[in-house]
Amino acid sequence: MSQFKYRADTEGMLNTYLDWYKQAEYILSLKPSLPDKFKTSKGAREYHRPQHIIICGLGGSGIAGDLVKDALGNEIKVPIEIVKEYTLPSYAGEETLVIAVSYSGNTEETLSCYVEAVEKNCMIASISSGGYLKKFSEKTGALHIDLMSGYQPRASLPQLLFAILKTLETLKIVSGQPYAEVIQVLRENKTNFSPENEQNKAKELAEKLYRKIPVIYGHSFYKGVAIRLKNEFNENTKIPAKAEVFPELDHNDIVGWEDNELSKNFTAIILRNEEEYMKERIEATIDIMKKYGAEVIELSSRAETVLAKIMDICHLGGLASIYLALLYGRDPALIEPISLLKKRLGEKVGLQKKLLEKLSKTVSQ
Amino acid sequence: MSQFKYRADTEGMLNTYLDWYKQAEYILSLKPSLPDKFKTSKGAREYHRPQHIIICGLGGSGIAGDLVKDALGNEIKVPIEIVKEYTLPSYAGEETLVIAVSYSGNTEETLSCYVEAVEKNCMIASISSGGYLKKFSEKTGALHIDLMSGYQPRASLPQLLFAILKTLETLKIVSGQPYAEVIQVLRENKTNFSPENEQNKAKELAEKLYRKIPVIYGHSFYKGVAIRLKNEFNENTKIPAKAEVFPELDHNDIVGWEDNELSKNFTAIILRNEEEYMKERIEATIDIMKKYGAEVIELSSRAETVLAKIMDICHLGGLASIYLALLYGRDPALIEPISLLKKRLGEKVGLQKKLLEKLSKTVSQ
Repeated sequence: MSQFKYRADTEGMLNTYLDWYKQAEYILSLKPSLPDKFKTSKGAREYHRPQHIIICGLGGSGIAGDLVKDALGNEIKVPIEIVKEYTLPSYAGEETLVIAVSYSGNTEETLSCYVEAVEKNCMIASISSGGYLKKFSEKTGALHIDLMSGYQPRASLPQLLFAILKTLETLKIVSGQPYAEVIQVLRENKTNFSPENEQNKAKELAEKLYRKIPVIYGHSFYKGVAIRLKNEFNENTKIPAKAEVFPELDHNDIVGWEDNELSKNFTAIILRNEEEYMKERIEATIDIMKKYGAEVIELSSRAETVLAKIMDICHLGGLASIYLALLYGRDPALIEPISLLKKRLGEKVGLQKKLLEKLSKTVSQ
Repeated sequence: MSQFKYRADTEGMLNTYLDWYKQAEYILSLKPSLPDKFKTSKGAREYHRPQHIIICGLGGSGIAGDLVKDALGNEIKVPIEIVKEYTLPSYAGEETLVIAVSYSGNTEETLSCYVEAVEKNCMIASISSGGYLKKFSEKTGALHIDLMSGYQPRASLPQLLFAILKTLETLKIVSGQPYAEVIQVLRENKTNFSPENEQNKAKELAEKLYRKIPVIYGHSFYKGVAIRLKNEFNENTKIPAKAEVFPELDHNDIVGWEDNELSKNFTAIILRNEEEYMKERIEATIDIMKKYGAEVIELSSRAETVLAKIMDICHLGGLASIYLALLYGRDPALIEPISLLKKRLGEKVGLQKKLLEKLSKTVSQ
């Protein structure tokens, strides 16, 4: 077995993740105030109760939207859609609340959606650590939450997730969430997942996944978590990974385990927390996977509230993806393919600046 | 290179897929009539224009919902959600249209959603080739489209997809769709993809994927198609497969190609049909993937309408998954892990019968 090569972590990602509770506490210390009015293509308008909510965001920002949707479950009685595209769905209009989330504030897809929301006279809010998105909010005067800057977007999940919930609270769409348990769990995890701790579940998970492709199976409020963990292994560890959800995966994906020659490359991580039918289903699935030779790791959280369970498993998975990067001797902070892509698209397209010009014209008409 | 072992195809799946145009024509021959009223927990009610549409279905039935959503694009001005769960989202109510789709009519998740829709006084429609779902529709008197029976659910995609569109037409939510080009493309494909044709794109695709894990990258109206192709390789070929969508995959999944040792197991299939920014983005992504050693196959359709493009690529991918099964000498019809799972859950849980009893009580109150 390989050793953890801590010197590969040039930007201190391990400590940034261990200190997640501080980011969560920062957002809780904010007291955002709701503007009386903000500007759209139709002039000044007010906020009211929306008929649909759209959360726009990509990558580490978009997944925070998925996790919020999972965490709120039945608490919100209107459709919530997470949009990871350049354009809004056709129903977006003045009864729609659009929350644009981009950690950097410069994600071109999210900026495009913001401008479209202004054109369509939607209710608008935004979240970023600066960038164009903050400038956009200064033009419209719409609600904006400012994040602490200097992190990788994926490393700022507690800020992003709590800021979306704070936005919904400020708009009186949800009431106060069970934040206290999240802070408690993240604080305990700092000790549990620290490099000094030898009984460390994050390290153990990393060791089991060495030279394997993780495939994460989630369900219910762990659907977004499965995708989050996949993304963490992609970005922090720089390996392929895969996410699927119950019960859908029982109708197709499970058959792939029959080919042991190809499937032996994978290790399944199953997020457990279920009752009644789902328990029967997931246990039957695990038995059948093992019959075909699958390696299965089961993860569950000690937390009580859904929000804390979600953040607990995201924390465990994120730190496991960092420890696994260190086993490979890779820097968890580097994401060369994305850097290459952004450079090339930035040079060729330069969409952000054009969008700011368009927005300025739209709100000054 | 291995040879196609046609004798492994014991149920004639290859011919069933080649004859897809016949299934499409069958649905077009139907003239469903809308019942004036149907029964829910609140007594008899009528249909009117919904504020949200929910399509419930799993596996081969659920994916038809995804494809319909992609095909309609901006044509429907209300939120459409595809639900692959036991329960409806919390906003479901009397302004919601719920379309329950299950080829067999016995999918327990879909049946649960139907009963919940009756309890919540939703507008209801259903599609099946018989089974409990048909019985449910006889109890409520709600709109039901009856499919030709005797197929594997995944092999009946043209029926499922066209039946959902016919349901929306019957409810006057959409107008007539460009069916003619779909029929024409499927008819041409019968010749193009037949075993006798040596210049056969489906065979070529299968040969390129031998001993590889397909990862399908879709975008825009090809998002559902990417997932459909993944499912086809799972079920028909019995291999693991993976689906991702642009632009989201550029924010995480692309980094996985850096690890050539793990990524060399995959071959990427990229569904091409894009304009402006997306073209720049996808071409940059392909260049970067190739720099890290990725094998990339690009697929596009000669069809003109979105609906025909979607069905064309589903047809090509489905037949490629069957030819690939025959290269491995596997029967495309068999799905042993799903059969084992259904047997075990059926024995232990027996949910369908309980749901019928519950429904009967609900509508007779």
